[in-house]
Amino acid sequence: MRVRHKSWAKPYIESQPTLIVTDAEAWAGKWDQRFAKKQPLHLEIGIGKGQFIIEMAKRHPEINFIGIELQESVIAVALRKLVESQLTNVQLVETDGALVNTLFRAGEIDKMYLNFSDPWPKKRHAKRRLTSSTFLGSYREVLKDGHQLEFKTDNRGLFEYSLISFNQFGTNFEYVSLDLHDSPEQADNVETEYEAKFSQNGPIYKIVINFKTN
Amino acid sequence: MRVRHKSWAKPYIESQPTLIVTDAEAWAGKWDQRFAKKQPLHLEIGIGKGQFIIEMAKRHPEINFIGIELQESVIAVALRKLVESQLTNVQLVETDGALVNTLFRAGEIDKMYLNFSDPWPKKRHAKRRLTSSTFLGSYREVLKDGHQLEFKTDNRGLFEYSLISFNQFGTNFEYVSLDLHDSPEQADNVETEYEAKFSQNGPIYKIVINFKTN
Repeated sequence: MRVRHKSWAKPYIESQPTLIVTDAEAWAGKWDQRFAKKQPLHLEIGIGKGQFIIEMAKRHPEINFIGIELQESVIAVALRKLVESQLTNVQLVETDGALVNTLFRAGEIDKMYLNFSDPWPKKRHAKRRLTSSTFLGSYREVLKDGHQLEFKTDNRGLFEYSLISFNQFGTNFEYVSLDLHDSPEQADNVETEYEAKFSQNGPIYKIVINFKTN
Repeated sequence: MRVRHKSWAKPYIESQPTLIVTDAEAWAGKWDQRFAKKQPLHLEIGIGKGQFIIEMAKRHPEINFIGIELQESVIAVALRKLVESQLTNVQLVETDGALVNTLFRAGEIDKMYLNFSDPWPKKRHAKRRLTSSTFLGSYREVLKDGHQLEFKTDNRGLFEYSLISFNQFGTNFEYVSLDLHDSPEQADNVETEYEAKFSQNGPIYKIVINFKTN
Protein backbone atom coordinates (compact mmCIF):
# COMPACT_ATOMS: atom_id res chain seq x y z
CA MET A 1 0.00 0.00 0.00
CA ARG A 2 1.48 3.35 -1.06
CA VAL A 3 0.50 6.17 1.29
CA ARG A 4 1.18 9.82 1.80
CA HIS A 5 3.64 10.79 4.49
CA LYS A 6 1.86 11.84 7.65
CA SER A 7 3.85 14.28 9.76
CA TRP A 8 1.87 13.44 12.90
CA ALA A 9 2.67 9.70 12.64
CA LYS A 10 6.10 9.57 14.24
CA PRO A 11 5.38 11.72 17.33
CA TYR A 12 2.05 9.94 17.81
CA ILE A 13 3.72 6.52 17.74
CA GLU A 14 6.30 7.75 20.25
CA SER A 15 3.49 8.92 22.52
CA GLN A 16 1.98 5.40 22.82
CA PRO A 17 4.80 3.15 24.03
CA THR A 18 2.42 0.78 25.84
CA LEU A 19 0.56 -0.06 22.60
CA ILE A 20 3.24 0.02 19.91
CA VAL A 21 6.77 -1.30 19.86
CA THR A 22 9.61 0.09 17.82
CA ASP A 23 12.39 -2.00 19.40
CA ALA A 24 10.69 -5.30 18.68
CA GLU A 25 13.67 -7.62 18.97
CA ALA A 26 14.02 -6.68 22.63
CA TRP A 27 10.72 -8.45 23.29
CA ALA A 28 11.48 -11.82 21.71
CA GLY A 29 10.37 -14.54 24.10
CA LYS A 30 8.59 -12.14 26.44
CA TRP A 31 5.71 -10.73 24.47
CA ASP A 32 3.35 -12.03 27.13
CA GLN A 33 4.62 -9.29 29.43
CA ARG A 34 3.20 -6.59 27.17
CA PHE A 35 -0.39 -7.84 27.57
CA ALA A 36 -2.88 -7.57 30.42
CA LYS A 37 -3.37 -11.36 30.41
CA LYS A 38 -1.23 -14.29 29.42
CA GLN A 39 -3.19 -16.08 26.67
CA PRO A 40 -2.68 -17.47 23.15
CA LEU A 41 -0.75 -15.20 20.81
CA HIS A 42 -1.91 -14.54 17.24
CA LEU A 43 0.21 -12.63 14.75
CA GLU A 44 -0.81 -10.65 11.67
CA ILE A 45 1.93 -9.57 9.28
CA GLY A 46 1.06 -6.48 7.27
CA ILE A 47 -1.89 -5.08 9.22
CA GLY A 48 -2.36 -1.99 7.04
CA LYS A 49 -4.76 0.36 8.81
CA GLY A 50 -5.64 -2.33 11.33
CA GLN A 51 -9.34 -2.97 10.68
CA PHE A 52 -8.90 -6.77 10.68
CA ILE A 53 -6.75 -7.12 13.79
CA ILE A 54 -8.85 -4.71 15.83
CA GLU A 55 -12.11 -6.42 14.93
CA MET A 56 -10.55 -9.82 15.62
CA ALA A 57 -9.35 -8.59 19.01
CA LYS A 58 -12.85 -7.34 19.86
CA ARG A 59 -14.38 -10.69 18.95
CA HIS A 60 -11.68 -12.70 20.73
CA PRO A 61 -10.81 -11.21 24.11
CA GLU A 62 -9.37 -14.63 25.01
CA ILE A 63 -6.53 -14.11 22.51
CA ASN A 64 -3.64 -11.64 22.43
CA PHE A 65 -2.89 -10.16 19.01
CA ILE A 66 0.34 -8.76 17.63
CA GLY A 67 0.22 -6.75 14.42
CA ILE A 68 3.27 -5.97 12.31
CA GLU A 69 3.39 -3.19 9.74
CA LEU A 70 6.38 -1.60 8.11
CA GLN A 71 4.92 1.71 6.97
CA GLU A 72 4.87 4.36 9.66
CA SER A 73 2.04 6.42 8.15
CA VAL A 74 -0.14 3.31 7.92
CA ILE A 75 0.53 1.78 11.33
CA ALA A 76 -0.10 5.20 12.87
CA VAL A 77 -3.68 5.02 11.58
CA ALA A 78 -4.05 1.52 13.04
CA LEU A 79 -2.65 2.81 16.32
CA ARG A 80 -5.22 5.58 16.42
CA LYS A 81 -7.99 3.01 15.99
CA LEU A 82 -6.43 0.87 18.70
CA VAL A 83 -6.29 3.78 21.14
CA GLU A 84 -9.95 4.57 20.47
CA SER A 85 -10.94 0.91 20.92
CA GLN A 86 -9.42 0.75 24.44
CA LEU A 87 -8.53 -2.89 23.73
CA THR A 88 -5.86 -4.39 25.96
CA ASN A 89 -5.22 -7.48 23.84
CA VAL A 90 -3.45 -5.86 20.86
CA GLN A 91 0.15 -4.81 20.48
CA LEU A 92 1.48 -3.18 17.32
CA VAL A 93 4.99 -3.47 15.98
CA GLU A 94 6.52 -1.10 13.46
CA THR A 95 8.96 -3.31 11.61
CA ASP A 96 9.57 -5.48 8.57
CA GLY A 97 7.68 -8.79 8.43
CA ALA A 98 10.78 -10.34 6.92
CA LEU A 99 12.31 -10.19 10.39
CA VAL A 100 9.61 -12.25 12.04
CA ASN A 101 11.95 -14.97 13.25
CA THR A 102 14.09 -12.43 15.09
CA LEU A 103 11.05 -10.98 16.89
CA PHE A 104 9.77 -14.18 18.44
CA ARG A 105 11.32 -17.21 19.98
CA ALA A 106 10.59 -20.60 18.40
CA GLY A 107 6.98 -21.66 18.98
CA GLU A 108 5.95 -18.37 20.59
CA ILE A 109 3.04 -17.84 18.15
CA ASP A 110 -0.23 -19.82 18.15
CA LYS A 111 -1.64 -18.63 14.84
CA MET A 112 -0.71 -16.34 11.95
CA TYR A 113 -2.63 -14.20 9.45
CA LEU A 114 -1.58 -12.75 6.11
CA ASN A 115 -4.21 -10.54 4.49
CA PHE A 116 -3.93 -9.03 1.02
CA SER A 117 -0.16 -9.05 1.05
CA ASP A 118 1.74 -7.19 -1.64
CA PRO A 119 1.52 -9.41 -4.76
CA TRP A 120 4.95 -8.42 -6.14
CA PRO A 121 3.72 -9.46 -9.58
CA LYS A 122 7.10 -9.49 -11.33
CA LYS A 123 8.73 -12.91 -11.40
CA ARG A 124 12.10 -11.50 -10.33
CA HIS A 125 10.43 -10.19 -7.16
CA ALA A 126 8.85 -13.53 -6.25
CA LYS A 127 11.14 -13.97 -3.25
CA ARG A 128 9.65 -10.83 -1.71
CA ARG A 129 6.16 -12.31 -1.60
CA LEU A 130 5.19 -13.07 2.00
CA THR A 131 4.22 -16.61 0.93
CA SER A 132 7.60 -17.50 -0.58
CA SER A 133 9.63 -20.34 0.87
CA THR A 134 12.04 -18.13 2.82
CA PHE A 135 9.17 -16.52 4.70
CA LEU A 136 7.47 -19.87 5.22
CA GLY A 137 10.64 -21.09 6.88
CA SER A 138 10.45 -18.17 9.34
CA TYR A 139 6.77 -18.73 10.02
CA ARG A 140 7.38 -22.40 10.76
CA GLU A 141 10.03 -21.38 13.29
CA VAL A 142 7.87 -18.99 15.26
CA LEU A 143 4.62 -20.98 15.09
CA LYS A 144 3.93 -23.77 17.52
CA ASP A 145 4.24 -27.20 15.87
CA GLY A 146 1.33 -27.97 13.58
CA HIS A 147 -0.37 -24.60 14.10
CA GLN A 148 -2.22 -22.59 11.48
CA LEU A 149 -1.58 -19.80 9.05
CA GLU A 150 -4.57 -18.14 7.37
CA PHE A 151 -4.04 -16.29 4.11
CA LYS A 152 -6.50 -14.15 2.16
CA THR A 153 -6.01 -12.27 -1.08
CA ASP A 154 -7.93 -11.02 -4.08
CA ASN A 155 -4.85 -11.32 -6.28
CA ARG A 156 -5.20 -14.38 -8.47
CA GLY A 157 -1.55 -14.55 -9.45
CA LEU A 158 -0.44 -14.35 -5.82
CA PHE A 159 -2.90 -17.03 -4.77
CA GLU A 160 -1.84 -19.38 -7.58
CA TYR A 161 1.80 -18.84 -6.60
CA SER A 162 1.00 -19.34 -2.92
CA LEU A 163 -0.87 -22.62 -3.46
CA ILE A 164 2.23 -24.02 -5.16
CA SER A 165 4.59 -22.49 -2.59
CA PHE A 166 2.60 -23.80 0.40
CA ASN A 167 2.35 -27.25 -1.20
CA GLN A 168 6.00 -27.50 -2.15
CA PHE A 169 7.07 -26.33 1.31
CA GLY A 170 5.23 -29.32 2.75
CA THR A 171 2.44 -27.53 4.57
CA ASN A 172 -0.88 -29.25 5.09
CA PHE A 173 -3.97 -27.68 3.50
CA GLU A 174 -6.94 -27.55 5.90
CA TYR A 175 -9.33 -25.22 4.08
CA VAL A 176 -9.51 -23.56 0.67
CA SER A 177 -12.09 -21.13 -0.68
CA LEU A 178 -11.88 -19.74 -4.19
CA ASP A 179 -14.69 -17.28 -3.45
CA LEU A 180 -14.80 -16.60 0.26
CA HIS A 181 -17.61 -14.09 0.06
CA ASP A 182 -19.76 -16.76 -1.59
CA SER A 183 -18.82 -19.46 0.96
CA PRO A 184 -20.56 -20.48 4.19
CA GLU A 185 -17.45 -19.28 6.07
CA GLN A 186 -18.19 -15.70 5.01
CA ALA A 187 -20.56 -15.53 7.99
CA ASP A 188 -17.53 -15.43 10.31
CA ASN A 189 -15.21 -13.55 7.99
CA VAL A 190 -13.57 -10.44 9.42
CA GLU A 191 -12.88 -8.08 6.54
CA THR A 192 -9.88 -5.83 6.06
CA GLU A 193 -10.34 -2.23 4.83
CA TYR A 194 -9.06 -3.29 1.45
CA GLU A 195 -11.37 -6.31 1.29
CA ALA A 196 -14.46 -4.26 2.12
CA LYS A 197 -13.53 -1.77 -0.59
CA PHE A 198 -12.41 -4.02 -3.46
CA SER A 199 -14.21 -7.34 -3.09
CA GLN A 200 -16.77 -6.32 -5.74
CA ASN A 201 -14.04 -6.59 -8.37
CA GLY A 202 -13.59 -10.35 -8.14
CA PRO A 203 -13.37 -13.30 -5.75
CA ILE A 204 -11.52 -13.28 -2.45
CA TYR A 205 -9.33 -16.37 -2.14
CA LYS A 206 -8.58 -17.92 1.25
CA ILE A 207 -6.51 -20.82 2.48
CA VAL A 208 -5.78 -22.21 5.94
CA ILE A 209 -2.66 -24.33 6.24
CA ASN A 210 -0.70 -25.84 9.06
CA PHE A 211 2.97 -26.56 9.32
CA LYS A 212 3.02 -30.24 9.99
CA THR A 213 6.22 -31.57 11.48
CA ASN A 214 6.01 -35.23 10.31
CA MET B 1 -23.13 -36.28 -17.73
CA ARG B 2 -26.66 -37.63 -18.02
CA VAL B 3 -27.49 -38.73 -21.56
CA ARG B 4 -30.27 -40.34 -23.48
CA HIS B 5 -29.95 -44.00 -24.31
CA LYS B 6 -28.78 -44.52 -27.87
CA SER B 7 -29.90 -47.80 -29.39
CA TRP B 8 -27.17 -47.73 -32.03
CA ALA B 9 -24.40 -47.42 -29.42
CA LYS B 10 -23.92 -51.06 -28.43
CA PRO B 11 -23.84 -52.61 -31.93
CA TYR B 12 -21.60 -49.77 -33.14
CA ILE B 13 -19.11 -50.37 -30.32
CA GLU B 14 -19.13 -54.08 -31.10
CA SER B 15 -18.36 -53.29 -34.74
CA GLN B 16 -15.09 -51.47 -33.88
CA PRO B 17 -13.01 -53.93 -31.85
CA THR B 18 -9.70 -52.46 -33.02
CA LEU B 19 -10.54 -49.02 -31.59
CA ILE B 20 -12.54 -49.74 -28.45
CA VAL B 21 -12.02 -52.30 -25.72
CA THR B 22 -14.73 -53.81 -23.60
CA ASP B 23 -12.57 -56.48 -21.91
CA ALA B 24 -10.02 -53.98 -20.62
CA GLU B 25 -8.44 -56.06 -17.89
CA ALA B 26 -7.20 -58.52 -20.49
CA TRP B 27 -4.89 -55.82 -21.81
CA ALA B 28 -3.13 -54.85 -18.57
CA GLY B 29 0.59 -54.63 -19.24
CA LYS B 30 0.22 -54.99 -22.99
CA TRP B 31 -1.61 -51.88 -24.15
CA ASP B 32 1.32 -51.09 -26.43
CA GLN B 33 0.19 -54.00 -28.64
CA ARG B 34 -3.06 -52.21 -29.47
CA PHE B 35 -1.27 -49.23 -31.07
CA ALA B 36 0.52 -48.81 -34.39
CA LYS B 37 3.66 -47.59 -32.61
CA LYS B 38 5.17 -48.14 -29.20
CA GLN B 39 5.38 -44.68 -27.64
CA PRO B 40 4.46 -42.89 -24.38
CA LEU B 41 0.99 -43.70 -23.06
CA HIS B 42 -1.37 -40.97 -21.84
CA LEU B 43 -4.66 -41.75 -20.13
CA GLU B 44 -7.82 -39.68 -19.84
CA ILE B 45 -10.47 -40.85 -17.37
CA GLY B 46 -13.97 -39.72 -18.27
CA ILE B 47 -13.55 -38.69 -21.89
CA GLY B 48 -17.21 -37.77 -22.46
CA LYS B 49 -17.78 -37.31 -26.18
CA GLY B 50 -14.04 -37.38 -26.82
CA GLN B 51 -13.30 -33.89 -28.13
CA PHE B 52 -10.29 -33.42 -25.84
CA ILE B 53 -8.59 -36.77 -26.39
CA ILE B 54 -9.08 -36.71 -30.15
CA GLU B 55 -7.69 -33.19 -30.50
CA MET B 56 -4.77 -34.09 -28.21
CA ALA B 57 -4.06 -37.17 -30.32
CA LYS B 58 -4.06 -35.06 -33.49
CA ARG B 59 -1.61 -32.59 -31.97
CA HIS B 60 0.61 -35.29 -30.50
CA PRO B 61 1.17 -38.16 -32.93
CA GLU B 62 4.24 -39.07 -30.84
CA ILE B 63 1.96 -40.15 -27.97
CA ASN B 64 -0.56 -42.98 -27.61
CA PHE B 65 -3.79 -42.07 -25.85
CA ILE B 66 -6.20 -44.26 -23.94
CA GLY B 67 -9.61 -42.85 -23.07
CA ILE B 68 -11.91 -44.37 -20.46
CA GLU B 69 -15.62 -43.66 -20.28
CA LEU B 70 -18.30 -45.56 -18.42
CA GLN B 71 -21.41 -44.45 -20.30
CA GLU B 72 -22.05 -46.42 -23.44
CA SER B 73 -24.13 -43.77 -25.18
CA VAL B 74 -21.39 -41.21 -24.60
CA ILE B 75 -18.34 -43.26 -25.54
CA ALA B 76 -20.17 -44.34 -28.70
CA VAL B 77 -20.17 -40.69 -29.81
CA ALA B 78 -16.46 -40.43 -29.06
CA LEU B 79 -15.89 -43.61 -31.02
CA ARG B 80 -17.69 -42.19 -34.02
CA LYS B 81 -15.40 -39.15 -33.92
CA LEU B 82 -12.39 -41.41 -33.60
CA VAL B 83 -13.42 -43.49 -36.60
CA GLU B 84 -13.86 -40.32 -38.66
CA SER B 85 -10.48 -38.97 -37.56
CA GLN B 86 -8.61 -42.07 -38.80
CA LEU B 87 -6.18 -41.63 -35.90
CA THR B 88 -4.11 -44.68 -34.98
CA ASN B 89 -2.91 -43.37 -31.62
CA VAL B 90 -6.16 -43.55 -29.65
CA GLN B 91 -7.80 -46.49 -27.95
CA LEU B 92 -11.10 -46.20 -26.09
CA VAL B 93 -12.17 -48.28 -23.14
CA GLU B 94 -15.75 -48.67 -21.97
CA THR B 95 -15.35 -49.18 -18.25
CA ASP B 96 -15.38 -47.55 -14.83
CA GLY B 97 -12.48 -45.22 -14.02
CA ALA B 98 -12.53 -46.62 -10.49
CA LEU B 99 -10.96 -49.76 -11.89
CA VAL B 100 -7.93 -48.02 -13.35
CA ASN B 101 -5.41 -49.97 -11.31
CA THR B 102 -6.78 -53.26 -12.62
CA LEU B 103 -6.47 -52.09 -16.24
CA PHE B 104 -2.80 -51.19 -16.21
CA ARG B 105 0.30 -52.62 -14.67
CA ALA B 106 2.28 -50.42 -12.27
CA GLY B 107 4.02 -47.58 -14.09
CA GLU B 108 2.41 -48.33 -17.45
CA ILE B 109 1.06 -44.76 -17.86
CA ASP B 110 3.18 -41.66 -18.61
CA LYS B 111 0.57 -38.99 -17.96
CA MET B 112 -3.05 -38.69 -16.87
CA TYR B 113 -5.89 -36.25 -17.54
CA LEU B 114 -9.11 -35.61 -15.64
CA ASN B 115 -11.42 -33.08 -17.30
CA PHE B 116 -14.63 -31.76 -15.79
CA SER B 117 -15.19 -34.84 -13.68
CA ASP B 118 -18.50 -35.35 -11.93
CA PRO B 119 -18.41 -33.00 -8.89
CA TRP B 120 -20.51 -35.26 -6.65
CA PRO B 121 -21.41 -32.18 -4.60
CA LYS B 122 -22.90 -33.96 -1.59
CA LYS B 123 -20.41 -34.50 1.20
CA ARG B 124 -21.47 -38.11 1.67
CA HIS B 125 -20.51 -38.77 -1.97
CA ALA B 126 -17.02 -37.24 -1.62
CA LYS B 127 -15.35 -40.63 -1.97
CA ARG B 128 -16.82 -40.94 -5.48
CA ARG B 129 -15.00 -37.84 -6.71
CA LEU B 130 -12.21 -38.82 -9.10
CA THR B 131 -9.79 -36.69 -7.06
CA SER B 132 -10.44 -38.43 -3.73
CA SER B 133 -7.63 -40.24 -1.97
CA THR B 134 -8.70 -43.73 -3.03
CA PHE B 135 -8.52 -42.77 -6.69
CA LEU B 136 -5.23 -40.93 -6.17
CA GLY B 137 -3.81 -44.14 -4.77
CA SER B 138 -4.76 -45.95 -7.98
CA TYR B 139 -3.36 -43.21 -10.18
CA ARG B 140 -0.06 -43.30 -8.33
CA GLU B 141 0.12 -47.04 -8.96
CA VAL B 142 -0.37 -46.88 -12.72
CA LEU B 143 1.66 -43.70 -13.34
CA LYS B 144 5.41 -43.84 -13.75
CA ASP B 145 7.22 -42.46 -10.69
CA GLY B 146 7.00 -38.66 -10.49
CA HIS B 147 4.82 -38.33 -13.58
CA GLN B 148 2.00 -35.85 -14.06
CA LEU B 149 -1.74 -35.66 -13.68
CA GLU B 150 -3.57 -32.68 -15.19
CA PHE B 151 -6.99 -31.76 -13.86
CA LYS B 152 -9.43 -29.16 -15.17
CA THR B 153 -12.86 -28.24 -13.89
CA ASP B 154 -15.25 -25.32 -13.77
CA ASN B 155 -16.72 -26.57 -10.49
CA ARG B 156 -15.42 -24.43 -7.66
CA GLY B 157 -16.39 -26.85 -4.90
CA LEU B 158 -14.70 -29.75 -6.66
CA PHE B 159 -11.53 -27.74 -7.26
CA GLU B 160 -11.37 -26.56 -3.63
CA TYR B 161 -11.82 -30.17 -2.50
CA SER B 162 -9.23 -31.40 -4.98
CA LEU B 163 -6.57 -28.88 -3.92
CA ILE B 164 -6.88 -30.17 -0.37
CA SER B 165 -7.04 -33.81 -1.46
CA PHE B 166 -3.98 -33.52 -3.75
CA ASN B 167 -2.04 -31.71 -1.03
CA GLN B 168 -2.94 -34.10 1.76
CA PHE B 169 -2.11 -37.08 -0.45
CA GLY B 170 1.41 -35.70 -0.76
CA THR B 171 1.41 -34.83 -4.45
CA ASN B 172 3.61 -32.04 -5.71
CA PHE B 173 1.93 -29.00 -7.30
CA GLU B 174 3.63 -27.92 -10.53
CA TYR B 175 1.09 -25.51 -12.00
CA VAL B 176 -2.16 -23.89 -10.86
CA SER B 177 -4.49 -21.58 -12.78
CA LEU B 178 -7.62 -20.15 -11.23
CA ASP B 179 -8.78 -18.81 -14.57
CA LEU B 180 -7.22 -20.87 -17.33
CA HIS B 181 -8.94 -19.04 -20.15
CA ASP B 182 -7.36 -15.80 -18.87
CA SER B 183 -3.88 -17.35 -18.47
CA PRO B 184 -0.96 -17.47 -20.92
CA GLU B 185 -1.36 -21.27 -21.01
CA GLN B 186 -4.75 -20.88 -22.69
CA ALA B 187 -2.84 -20.59 -25.97
CA ASP B 188 -2.10 -24.34 -25.80
CA ASN B 189 -5.28 -25.38 -24.04
CA VAL B 190 -7.27 -28.16 -25.69
CA GLU B 191 -10.92 -27.68 -24.78
CA THR B 192 -13.48 -30.35 -24.01
CA GLU B 193 -17.02 -30.09 -25.44
CA TYR B 194 -18.25 -29.07 -22.02
CA GLU B 195 -15.54 -26.45 -21.59
CA ALA B 196 -16.25 -24.84 -24.95
CA LYS B 197 -19.93 -24.65 -24.07
CA PHE B 198 -19.88 -23.52 -20.44
CA SER B 199 -16.71 -21.53 -19.89
CA GLN B 200 -18.61 -18.25 -20.22
CA ASN B 201 -20.31 -18.99 -16.90
CA GLY B 202 -17.19 -18.65 -14.76
CA PRO B 203 -13.51 -19.49 -14.52
CA ILE B 204 -11.95 -22.79 -15.58
CA TYR B 205 -9.60 -24.08 -12.89
CA LYS B 206 -6.56 -26.18 -13.75
CA ILE B 207 -3.82 -27.89 -11.79
CA VAL B 208 -0.87 -30.04 -12.79
CA ILE B 209 0.54 -32.28 -10.08
CA ASN B 210 3.06 -35.06 -9.94
CA PHE B 211 3.22 -38.04 -7.65
CA LYS B 212 6.59 -37.65 -6.04
CA THR B 213 7.98 -40.77 -4.45
CA ASN B 214 10.41 -39.30 -1.84
